[in-house]
Amino acid sequence: MGAGTDGLMTPALLVDRGRLAANVAEMAERTAARGVALRPHVKTSKSLDVARAQLAAGAIGFTCSTPAEVRLLQDAGIGGLVWAHQPVGPAKLAFAVAAARRGGLTVTVDSVEVAAPLGEALAEAGTSLPVLIEVDTGLGRTGADPGDVLALAEALTRWPALRLCGVLTHEGQLYAHAGDRAGLERAGRRAGEVMAGLGERLRAAGHPAGIVSVGSTPGATSTPFVPGVTETRAGTYVYYDANQVALGSVPLERCALTVLATVVSTRRRGTAIIDAGLKAMSSDRSVTGEGFGAVLAPTPGGGPLDGVAFTAANEEHGFLTGPGTARLTVGDRVRIVPNHACTTVNMWSEAQVLDGAEVVARWRISARH
Amino acid sequence: MGAGTDGLMTPALLVDRGRLAANVAEMAERTAARGVALRPHVKTSKSLDVARAQLAAGAIGFTCSTPAEVRLLQDAGIGGLVWAHQPVGPAKLAFAVAAARRGGLTVTVDSVEVAAPLGEALAEAGTSLPVLIEVDTGLGRTGADPGDVLALAEALTRWPALRLCGVLTHEGQLYAHAGDRAGLERAGRRAGEVMAGLGERLRAAGHPAGIVSVGSTPGATSTPFVPGVTETRAGTYVYYDANQVALGSVPLERCALTVLATVVSTRRRGTAIIDAGLKAMSSDRSVTGEGFGAVLAPTPGGGPLDGVAFTAANEEHGFLTGPGTARLTVGDRVRIVPNHACTTVNMWSEAQVLDGAEVVARWRISARH
Repeated sequence: MGAGTDGLMTPALLVDRGRLAANVAEMAERTAARGVALRPHVKTSKSLDVARAQLAAGAIGFTCSTPAEVRLLQDAGIGGLVWAHQPVGPAKLAFAVAAARRGGLTVTVDSVEVAAPLGEALAEAGTSLPVLIEVDTGLGRTGADPGDVLALAEALTRWPALRLCGVLTHEGQLYAHAGDRAGLERAGRRAGEVMAGLGERLRAAGHPAGIVSVGSTPGATSTPFVPGVTETRAGTYVYYDANQVALGSVPLERCALTVLATVVSTRRRGTAIIDAGLKAMSSDRSVTGEGFGAVLAPTPGGGPLDGVAFTAANEEHGFLTGPGTARLTVGDRVRIVPNHACTTVNMWSEAQVLDGAEVVARWRISARH
Repeated sequence: MGAGTDGLMTPALLVDRGRLAANVAEMAERTAARGVALRPHVKTSKSLDVARAQLAAGAIGFTCSTPAEVRLLQDAGIGGLVWAHQPVGPAKLAFAVAAARRGGLTVTVDSVEVAAPLGEALAEAGTSLPVLIEVDTGLGRTGADPGDVLALAEALTRWPALRLCGVLTHEGQLYAHAGDRAGLERAGRRAGEVMAGLGERLRAAGHPAGIVSVGSTPGATSTPFVPGVTETRAGTYVYYDANQVALGSVPLERCALTVLATVVSTRRRGTAIIDAGLKAMSSDRSVTGEGFGAVLAPTPGGGPLDGVAFTAANEEHGFLTGPGTARLTVGDRVRIVPNHACTTVNMWSEAQVLDGAEVVARWRISARH
């Protein structure tokens, strides 16, 4: 059937299909067992092949960050979409109106400044959209302050084209808890409690709040399981990555995504130069502050290379350093588990899909800027 | 004719066509006036539109980092190509053989380990390639040690399919001289002197070394103008960027590339959240270690926004901070001069080309991984 990886041009993006399937199944089962809906973030894979596997495992739809991601899924006939970014500006308002007519999309707002133009544009077009209020549970990015949510829900009633259906948060503050899984899970539960409490308060005040949505992969063992939370939007879990390992989400053996690279120079003692750099890995540093990913043996399924760290990178060159580089020679291959699967996938137009050691498919990566 | 930028979906990648044309012309004139050939690196623009403008201004060909870049230019009928990365591994050897048959490509080697398989693959295929020896003049990445170049040239005579034609370096060590232009130019001249000396020594020993090639944008005022250097391979100069400003290559007003973004939240005092994050800018930090680029007024040609810094980013969100953010409201737009034009361009499939305030074209960005 498929060939091995030897003939692949490097660098190459590899997906371990078995690990991916296990990750997809495990998250689907864990959430289903607790009665929590799963609406995964499509930004991690940007792949219809992965999205269809998630749907088959029970996902109720997808979370999107950009109009291009929404369009990718809508064009494939996939609904249940939440656009988890503020729809601001003429082009995004026009996009929201068009998407409202197609159906299957829920949008998020976090302020009257965002809501007013949207409510007016939808009304003018004679259409409407379901809306979630985004809440800031500690990341300090977008989202309304929890104390302002009730007043915002009240204000939204001015625009009947905005049909409030609940609240949403991204508990990205959990990424600050590398090396402190217990603290991470406490912070994850706190975020869930804030959200569940807001759902209750909204309903008590007569506002519809059937959806209480949380979402992050490090939080996926804690936040969604606070009573009152109805869904999670984790994304990175399909592949996991070195950051998730550092955050205690999974062990390294669960990571399904690697970059295959070739050693091109070993002239300097203690250093091996590879042909994977920033344009293969992304420039994302580790949550621990160091390096560009975990260096593994080239064999699919192979473990870490002892004494070899990926410490620096230029655009198309990576610097492996450490005593273990003495065992590497020009032409050798390594695989790298990236720090951040989402930004690494985003560097690539396609992934090479492996079943064991065989390349069995190529998956297109879509909706990049 | 064209519309303004108001209707553009944000984030968007903008090219100021007038500034680009001025940058292309200025580098071509400066090198031509000193009798130095210009073989620009295509990695910065990844655009045939930009490449054709460079050719029209007198470029003798292009430098490429990947097979995809070589193929893009070969398919467009453009020759004079140097592939400035080591061709290691079966797929790259096969690519080199195929490219040799098409013609117009020069490759680089820096060791016998790289040269031997290439020389053998070419001989077996009954073809040959012109070859430059890559030299490490201080970056500590790939390239032979200057002291080893003569011996390597001697060794290369074992493979007649490798037709030595000179030496090449990337003086990337100059990027360590932010805020020290005089030191940068001294280091740039030193790199040029090393290369010119190697060219002389090779010729004195009977080796062909008609090409003495250097290349970097910060070094483009010093390294190529050392007597004996024959060509420069600068790339970033077409757009310049915030790093080049920090390195003293040009003032901010020369930068031709910006990312247009929309403010989506101003809830937190001293902060404005925009819809351009790591997937619009790349994660590349500044050579000064801080931030994701220089924040400008939205009007094409507009200057810096006082008291506004781009200090943090997530995938599709940017964090602007500082007292100047008090003047920003939801829906406002800003433009960002990226830290590193090459990695930012690489995030995009197309650029919106502006003539003054009008969007007059869209240029395709090709050959991304």
